[in-house]
Amino acid sequence: MTVNVGVIGAGMIGTDHMRRLDRVVSGARVAAVTDIDPARAAEAAAGVGARALASDAEVVADPEVDAVLVASWGPAHAASVLAAIGAGKPVLCEKPLATTAEDCRRIMEAERAHGSRLVQVGFMRRYDTGYRAMKELIDEGAIGVPLMAHCAHRNPTVPEAYHSEMATKDTAIHEIDTLRWLLGEELATAQIIRPRRTSKRFAHLVDPQLLLFETESGARIDLEVFVNCQYGYDIRCEVVGEDGAVRLPEPQEAVLHAAGRSGSSVHQDWKRRFGAAFDAEVQAWADAVAAGRIEGPSAWDGYAAAMVGDAAVHSLETGEVVPTKVEERPDFYA
Amino acid sequence: MTVNVGVIGAGMIGTDHMRRLDRVVSGARVAAVTDIDPARAAEAAAGVGARALASDAEVVADPEVDAVLVASWGPAHAASVLAAIGAGKPVLCEKPLATTAEDCRRIMEAERAHGSRLVQVGFMRRYDTGYRAMKELIDEGAIGVPLMAHCAHRNPTVPEAYHSEMATKDTAIHEIDTLRWLLGEELATAQIIRPRRTSKRFAHLVDPQLLLFETESGARIDLEVFVNCQYGYDIRCEVVGEDGAVRLPEPQEAVLHAAGRSGSSVHQDWKRRFGAAFDAEVQAWADAVAAGRIEGPSAWDGYAAAMVGDAAVHSLETGEVVPTKVEERPDFYA
Amino acid sequence: MTVNVGVIGAGMIGTDHMRRLDRVVSGARVAAVTDIDPARAAEAAAGVGARALASDAEVVADPEVDAVLVASWGPAHAASVLAAIGAGKPVLCEKPLATTAEDCRRIMEAERAHGSRLVQVGFMRRYDTGYRAMKELIDEGAIGVPLMAHCAHRNPTVPEAYHSEMATKDTAIHEIDTLRWLLGEELATAQIIRPRRTSKRFAHLVDPQLLLFETESGARIDLEVFVNCQYGYDIRCEVVGEDGAVRLPEPQEAVLHAAGRSGSSVHQDWKRRFGAAFDAEVQAWADAVAAGRIEGPSAWDGYAAAMVGDAAVHSLETGEVVPTKVEERPDFYA
Amino acid sequence: MTVNVGVIGAGMIGTDHMRRLDRVVSGARVAAVTDIDPARAAEAAAGVGARALASDAEVVADPEVDAVLVASWGPAHAASVLAAIGAGKPVLCEKPLATTAEDCRRIMEAERAHGSRLVQVGFMRRYDTGYRAMKELIDEGAIGVPLMAHCAHRNPTVPEAYHSEMATKDTAIHEIDTLRWLLGEELATAQIIRPRRTSKRFAHLVDPQLLLFETESGARIDLEVFVNCQYGYDIRCEVVGEDGAVRLPEPQEAVLHAAGRSGSSVHQDWKRRFGAAFDAEVQAWADAVAAGRIEGPSAWDGYAAAMVGDAAVHSLETGEVVPTKVEERPDFYA
Repeated sequence: MTVNVGVIGAGMIGTDHMRRLDRVVSGARVAAVTDIDPARAAEAAAGVGARALASDAEVVADPEVDAVLVASWGPAHAASVLAAIGAGKPVLCEKPLATTAEDCRRIMEAERAHGSRLVQVGFMRRYDTGYRAMKELIDEGAIGVPLMAHCAHRNPTVPEAYHSEMATKDTAIHEIDTLRWLLGEELATAQIIRPRRTSKRFAHLVDPQLLLFETESGARIDLEVFVNCQYGYDIRCEVVGEDGAVRLPEPQEAVLHAAGRSGSSVHQDWKRRFGAAFDAEVQAWADAVAAGRIEGPSAWDGYAAAMVGDAAVHSLETGEVVPTKVEERPDFYA
Repeated sequence: MTVNVGVIGAGMIGTDHMRRLDRVVSGARVAAVTDIDPARAAEAAAGVGARALASDAEVVADPEVDAVLVASWGPAHAASVLAAIGAGKPVLCEKPLATTAEDCRRIMEAERAHGSRLVQVGFMRRYDTGYRAMKELIDEGAIGVPLMAHCAHRNPTVPEAYHSEMATKDTAIHEIDTLRWLLGEELATAQIIRPRRTSKRFAHLVDPQLLLFETESGARIDLEVFVNCQYGYDIRCEVVGEDGAVRLPEPQEAVLHAAGRSGSSVHQDWKRRFGAAFDAEVQAWADAVAAGRIEGPSAWDGYAAAMVGDAAVHSLETGEVVPTKVEERPDFYA
Repeated sequence: MTVNVGVIGAGMIGTDHMRRLDRVVSGARVAAVTDIDPARAAEAAAGVGARALASDAEVVADPEVDAVLVASWGPAHAASVLAAIGAGKPVLCEKPLATTAEDCRRIMEAERAHGSRLVQVGFMRRYDTGYRAMKELIDEGAIGVPLMAHCAHRNPTVPEAYHSEMATKDTAIHEIDTLRWLLGEELATAQIIRPRRTSKRFAHLVDPQLLLFETESGARIDLEVFVNCQYGYDIRCEVVGEDGAVRLPEPQEAVLHAAGRSGSSVHQDWKRRFGAAFDAEVQAWADAVAAGRIEGPSAWDGYAAAMVGDAAVHSLETGEVVPTKVEERPDFYA
Repeated sequence: MTVNVGVIGAGMIGTDHMRRLDRVVSGARVAAVTDIDPARAAEAAAGVGARALASDAEVVADPEVDAVLVASWGPAHAASVLAAIGAGKPVLCEKPLATTAEDCRRIMEAERAHGSRLVQVGFMRRYDTGYRAMKELIDEGAIGVPLMAHCAHRNPTVPEAYHSEMATKDTAIHEIDTLRWLLGEELATAQIIRPRRTSKRFAHLVDPQLLLFETESGARIDLEVFVNCQYGYDIRCEVVGEDGAVRLPEPQEAVLHAAGRSGSSVHQDWKRRFGAAFDAEVQAWADAVAAGRIEGPSAWDGYAAAMVGDAAVHSLETGEVVPTKVEERPDFYA
């Protein structure tokens, strides 16, 4: 069976997902595309042998469309996801699931009303081989009970449009989800500390930022977000437990000895670093859809990450420790 | 367009390729399967929604079959490849292309008679990201003119059926191809030196073996083949040039600090080490077939590797330096 | 010229320093030893061909003694150091310089009254090759202006006598000094956060602890202190600047591939990790004494570290950010 | 007790050893110096508070001289060592022990006539922490019975005076000794293979060279010697056994992430790479002399390495496998 996917949003990430569905993922194809810019939808659709449709509603309702992939801009996500749930169709939604906690809750209510999971949120790091190996070692007890995590998320530079809250909402959101998943518990508080700012940034931006989280059980996480670090795209993660510590491997690059130095090139963007994780994510989703189930990061995960992000952003102004107010996880998402 | 593949051979590697075509590769499917054991062919075909056919000839002639994948045992390869060429269909042949130089030459003649390339040989390491990064650095001049290469190919253990010539023909053959490709020239001589044998092997087996090669330009290669090294599947490769050296990265595994040691797990088989390379190989082949071209390792590569292997095996008995007698590469394969 | 050293304190560290002076350091010897336990002093003195004396005062006053090494317990340090200054003799004092800020100030006053530096504090990490390489790279601008540092200080286990304040005063004190030195500025605030406690500790102990510091310029430091981490003695340090990041190398140990894993042994105590740094420290001190100068970490460094430590310990109870109240550095210590 | 050392030879290495005896090694000093250039001897002697003497004979006979360090040019070594043995004084001789096998044998005879060991040869790598860790792991059985070793010895460049035989006699001689010591057996044959020459060398020089050795038990060693590798001073060594493999750690340098690359600086000469090994070697020798014993690499080791070197140089012309003709080790040197 081939899963016919309707794609909402034909921007950079949507186009990349269409290429992936068309040329990388087995057992899936793009059936329909829509975008707020009809010309862009038409061009994207032509490239993958799909039909361009006029609206989200048409995509969701299209009888050929088996499942929906939402890759529009964040504020539009909730409506598209709710429409897909309304039509009883599985939906893979790029992060964020929604831009307000209220919208996340509406999505969860709709999904529960439907009676089974339909929503997967695009937290693709859970499909990265390095994080998966860490998860496996933690789950098998190799480091004992986790007590701390040390992380960094660095980008070479960001454009002027990137503003201080995006350090949490667009950047740290990946670690927020990954740490919830690695540690198997919710983050109870968030705090942002402002180190001396780099001079190599647009004037309005608070960069770097140091995020601190406490989990329900009291484990502590520090996360450096530094989006103008100049030298590369560099992701670090170490979890420290009662019996040991496990960390992400350094990325697999050839080791060059030349001109008095030994070493490897550093990735310059997330595409090279997490390209295989995106592929694995969408393949797993297509396989699950074909098998009539949904397994990846859930609407609850999207909600909980959003709540943590809200708390962190609140702390960006005050510097105070802010409770995340994540409720107990409903049985539906257990 | 979906490429409909006819698979010849439903053993371990054939079955793995069918799973790959069915569930991993985009734009391809298994249309037909044959095997010397009809029951095995039937079972494999059922698993991927394909038809089981009675013979190679039927697979090759089947009108639905766009391209052929040969995964039978080595001695049967040549006939299947020649049949596919006769039908004008692209064929991906697992290594070896053929078990004699004469058969390789017949395949090349048939392909040239056809007028364009149809054959790709399954040297999947050319699709490994580590080797590709090395190739890229060498080609861009990062190490200058290559002068030497140091390699190792280690397996934890091999079964009793594995005999001494297989160290070259089944094991070192991968490095033989990879080094020809990395260095961009033919291997002119081969020699095998016998280190002290490990006691942890079946009595008949010469293990480890040290293979030495000289390229046309005089670069020297040493290659340790050690197929009962006990500790893991470990592949090493360093190329040393006039200006520097480049080597394969250590495989990407999580770094664990526990119980007084730091380090990573070592792969235990080629499936984990080169699984992604196999996926990339078959995807690239399917893409090329769909686009009406063949680009990967050619029949010439299969022939040249076989000639080098013959020379090495000859040296296994004598210990002498043996010329490989690889002729000049025909323009057809330039 | 041989520097004749009078050693005050013949416990574990004092005995190790005597061995070092006797057998490792060139141009120095132990001339006299004292200890609160006269028998221990006598035994230690006999082992290195020195005289056992009855008191600090006798050691300091001894005409053969050129320089004094203080290795008694912390509360006794100030009196011994002041006595040495009073006698105009150079003194190497194990950390802490004194247990109260008031005593540190008295030492600095006495030293200034003497007119030139006499005191070196035993912050031996400044002599570690890894930290020195970091310092060199930072000073030559390889990472640009420092903005953050991430550190960890892990011990396998500590005895029951180790209490929660020692995590700062005995353990983190090394990083406090090293970071002041690496970053070239004072630490302005300190805070201690309490992660979930490990179950593998004596009941009274807060372990691990997460220390946060802000420097005068606003750089931020996080430092994990975890003294019952079980797996080894593991010291991490990374400094992140505007243009790059530099970190301590992993310790130099042979890489073993065996039994399905690759990796190295982890140090089990500071003796192996920092033994060469201690040797270099005492050699440098002896050389400086012989040359009539004092160059290493000063009384000011001892004072500033103590002030930061006091602030951190204050935060251990409250969890609040505590100013360190380190004054401007006097010209005398510039 | 201070060991008073008479130094023969005040060139680069002799001067460095005098600095070491004067300023680094505990319990030793330079008492007397001689050199074929009296002015150079006088200057060196003045720098370390020693007396300049007119000849080897005077140094050896000097009543203040407890032990002799030979650092003259190779052809002069044998006479100096024999003189020291004649005087019954311990002697540390820089490699080579002698430039002919005959001279080595005469030294061993003289030493045996004396009745106990007096000679230590300056193979300082045995004191390098990395090699020592390898030795320890091999000796405790961590890799099982050794079967192979892979080594490389690279220098950035060499001056015009460096000729092809020096690749063995001056450069590979270190690995020859180290491998005999690591594997605990003699090298039975030697062979030199000539890879394509680098263009970045003086015209007369064969560089790189690939040396192959077989031990008595049949273990095989390959050793790349490449003295114009441009990029740095890089020493590699891996020993492969029946159960695992162990290799030298990469040198301990700070890890810098900057300008799109991560990595460390590569050493540029042996002084930085093996400075600590030289220090440890001479300290151990001085300690042994003070204790009335000699423990390091023996005259036998100097002889055996010379015999292997002779065989390798012989092969440089012919390319043939050359037996080393090392006899059975005398009980005296067991």
